[in-house]
Amino acid sequence: MISFRRSILALQLLILCLLHCAECRFPFKDVHASRTGDIPPYKELFFDNLLDHFNYGSFGEETYRQRYLLSNTYWKAGGPIFFYTGNEGPITNFYNNTGFIFDIAPKFNALIIFAEHRFYGQSLPAGPVKSFQSPYLGLLTIEQALADFAVLLSSVKAELNATDSAVISFGGSYGGMLAAYMRQKYPNIIDGALAASSPVLSIADIGDNGTFFRDVTNVFKANEGCEPRVREAFTAMDALSKNGKAGFANLTTTFQLCDPLDPNRGYKQLIGWVRNAFASMAMVNYPYPANFLGPLPAWPVNAACGLITNSTVGAMAGLAQAASLFYTNTQKCYDIWSEFVDCADPTGCGTGNDATAWDYQACTQMTLSGGTYGGDKDMFPYLPWTKDMRKAYCGKHYNIQPRDTELRTEYWGGDLQATSNIIYSNGLLDPWHDGGILKNVSDTIVAVTIKDGAHHLDLRASDPRDPQSVIVARQQEVELIRQFVKKATTVKQR
Amino acid sequence: MISFRRSILALQLLILCLLHCAECRFPFKDVHASRTGDIPPYKELFFDNLLDHFNYGSFGEETYRQRYLLSNTYWKAGGPIFFYTGNEGPITNFYNNTGFIFDIAPKFNALIIFAEHRFYGQSLPAGPVKSFQSPYLGLLTIEQALADFAVLLSSVKAELNATDSAVISFGGSYGGMLAAYMRQKYPNIIDGALAASSPVLSIADIGDNGTFFRDVTNVFKANEGCEPRVREAFTAMDALSKNGKAGFANLTTTFQLCDPLDPNRGYKQLIGWVRNAFASMAMVNYPYPANFLGPLPAWPVNAACGLITNSTVGAMAGLAQAASLFYTNTQKCYDIWSEFVDCADPTGCGTGNDATAWDYQACTQMTLSGGTYGGDKDMFPYLPWTKDMRKAYCGKHYNIQPRDTELRTEYWGGDLQATSNIIYSNGLLDPWHDGGILKNVSDTIVAVTIKDGAHHLDLRASDPRDPQSVIVARQQEVELIRQFVKKATTVKQR
Repeated sequence: MISFRRSILALQLLILCLLHCAECRFPFKDVHASRTGDIPPYKELFFDNLLDHFNYGSFGEETYRQRYLLSNTYWKAGGPIFFYTGNEGPITNFYNNTGFIFDIAPKFNALIIFAEHRFYGQSLPAGPVKSFQSPYLGLLTIEQALADFAVLLSSVKAELNATDSAVISFGGSYGGMLAAYMRQKYPNIIDGALAASSPVLSIADIGDNGTFFRDVTNVFKANEGCEPRVREAFTAMDALSKNGKAGFANLTTTFQLCDPLDPNRGYKQLIGWVRNAFASMAMVNYPYPANFLGPLPAWPVNAACGLITNSTVGAMAGLAQAASLFYTNTQKCYDIWSEFVDCADPTGCGTGNDATAWDYQACTQMTLSGGTYGGDKDMFPYLPWTKDMRKAYCGKHYNIQPRDTELRTEYWGGDLQATSNIIYSNGLLDPWHDGGILKNVSDTIVAVTIKDGAHHLDLRASDPRDPQSVIVARQQEVELIRQFVKKATTVKQR
Repeated sequence: MISFRRSILALQLLILCLLHCAECRFPFKDVHASRTGDIPPYKELFFDNLLDHFNYGSFGEETYRQRYLLSNTYWKAGGPIFFYTGNEGPITNFYNNTGFIFDIAPKFNALIIFAEHRFYGQSLPAGPVKSFQSPYLGLLTIEQALADFAVLLSSVKAELNATDSAVISFGGSYGGMLAAYMRQKYPNIIDGALAASSPVLSIADIGDNGTFFRDVTNVFKANEGCEPRVREAFTAMDALSKNGKAGFANLTTTFQLCDPLDPNRGYKQLIGWVRNAFASMAMVNYPYPANFLGPLPAWPVNAACGLITNSTVGAMAGLAQAASLFYTNTQKCYDIWSEFVDCADPTGCGTGNDATAWDYQACTQMTLSGGTYGGDKDMFPYLPWTKDMRKAYCGKHYNIQPRDTELRTEYWGGDLQATSNIIYSNGLLDPWHDGGILKNVSDTIVAVTIKDGAHHLDLRASDPRDPQSVIVARQQEVELIRQFVKKATTVKQR
């Protein structure tokens, strides 16, 4: 959901890097060095899956090549299958950055499969150009993606003589939604799910759509003195923006922009660029340094707040330093137009195919966070994202209309009593968490909250610097997964 | 699934009349006269539903007019909604022939909704011609139909201020499958289901595909001396079919055919026509007379067997009389080509739009019964219906391929532990019953078997001539529905 200066990298990073930061293609090297186990090798395989599962007439039996990765390093006969429901990016990235699965697979003798989501990575229905045009792009829906997973899994299980193996789905962020949806809609195929940091309520347009940026604000509030200084900085920016040429020149200098700020559209873009840095740092507010383009320190929110509160040249200069901390402070100057690309997701998209696919999904089924409003709503300037704005954008770009109630109808909103065996985990530092399931629904629909966790920290490999809350959460998750597997295995062997 | 001599009537009867005989447009007058309550009046309404729920690009927000019938005669605030998931025919027919719902609605203060299935009756996506051509016909899938029901119900509930009302889905035969599938896939919308005589296993290509005609055979076997005489008659027909002109002339006379039997294709057609009469009478083997084109007596299988076993002019002549009992014995002669139209459903289709729609469904998602083989399989002549034959037929007629594993993947086959609140009822006289769920899966996935019941007898209005087994079954169903409603109402009012 962000883009970066170097557009060739941005092609692959996009959305992926922040909504699903853990899967960023840039390895968190120091983290990998300290993880419990190594990342096991995998086979890269392809499965011919149906283009359209729900219309016999449109494409008939035409198929596309869906990529999946398979690792049998830890598998022993009778062991379960751990199935990662790929989300908005190349599946290799998810494979390389979901260490929790590899940490626990040996305990379960589990077979590991990571399946790529249609329209992302290499799983393009009709190549890199045609896939994103009519009549193909319409095939990018959650229902089609779930049916892909169901058909793929059924086939692979049969091929490997593993029809009796229990299957646990795993996913983070949008992938977590998919993991849960798979259990809801295909419990014949999925015996249990770990849905990490999946905002299943807000994404279905349920509840207050201002929670995301309010939660971002709260994360910064937790640093004493930080939030008021951020507001002060934005106030200063606002004053400059109304001060004609001199004001724009000041902003251009302070934020080290490569090009002078465009007097017409530039200020709004600058705000979006800054806001995105803050939202992103809240999401990746991990307890250890992560090499994220330029390196981010441990607890980047603390680091950003330090720059802001300790700034001796004013709050705004501190804010600019905090933004550059995120956008990499080794750059000579910043190109706010390539580094933040506005789209149907108010946290921004990038460019390239993965970005287009995500933008399309944000224009169709998924309701993403609703802009900022300042005042008692959040610490950011007024930069709204209303339903009407979204409608207009999506009509203009794709000639489509979002269907606001669709996800609630198809995936039940919070009315989850009828399903079972799903873990909804949420880090309380993650700005998405208030859009998720935070209370147990039943004995087997369990909410796991992680006090010191950012966006699906629990799915990452274990690390000596992990806070106690994620250690405890992972233990609870393992225990629940064990129960799900045991119950399924008992049933299947009857 | 049958056609009749008078083709203008056949247009509407088709499939409907036998797979779902109770809903035949020809009222079972004597039955209605004796039913417990009257059929309440309804409003005929239309809802603009999406053409394609799973592809934003194909038809965008284009809608079609879906018909539904609404009766608030028995509704009191807080009462549940009884929702009939329409199947392969005009919804008015289902409304007029599912008396059980009206018998019990007053006890529940229930609102009644009958929703028509897309592509049947008046719910045609693009009129009577274009609907059955590309690009529309491909939209005829179970998933689209279920999504129609979900969207329609959500809208109607909101409109009627009934969002807290529990909803129970009802359906018979294919409609029963849909009622159950709704609970499986949309438990946020459907709180419980009565799936009457729905062969959810065989239709998903699970188990022995020869159960249908074996069960037909068993129903006739129960009449002492009947089945051997039927076999004797078919043997005699076979001998005549190999006896040149004289043999064909004899068959033409014996079966009162309007036109001389075609020496090339006629004999196979005659067998299909006779076989269909037997299959149909087994399905509508009700305990009271039913006015079915020509009137059928109570327990028509007994009547047919009487004609066969008591025939003084040979078994074959008795067989011909039994067939004419079904095809209406007031006709002067029989046109086997219009009265039985071969299609992807081996029990036959008719002509007209409803027949085309059903044939298409039998060519895509639904695996219908697998022909006859004689010997120890069934009492009928060898008239197979293999997967290869089906493939060839569907390829030729619609340029499509059946997907044999699709229903198992989408609707879980017999792997139903993860759902709840479904009653699968089956009459043991119904030749479809061995393709259904005959054992309890859990406390709330309950199999109700009706010893003396034919095809969804339990969904019909109560009648003084009802066998004890259906009376008990209906009591059990009411009790379970009461539990489902109570549980749902408790949850919703939390």
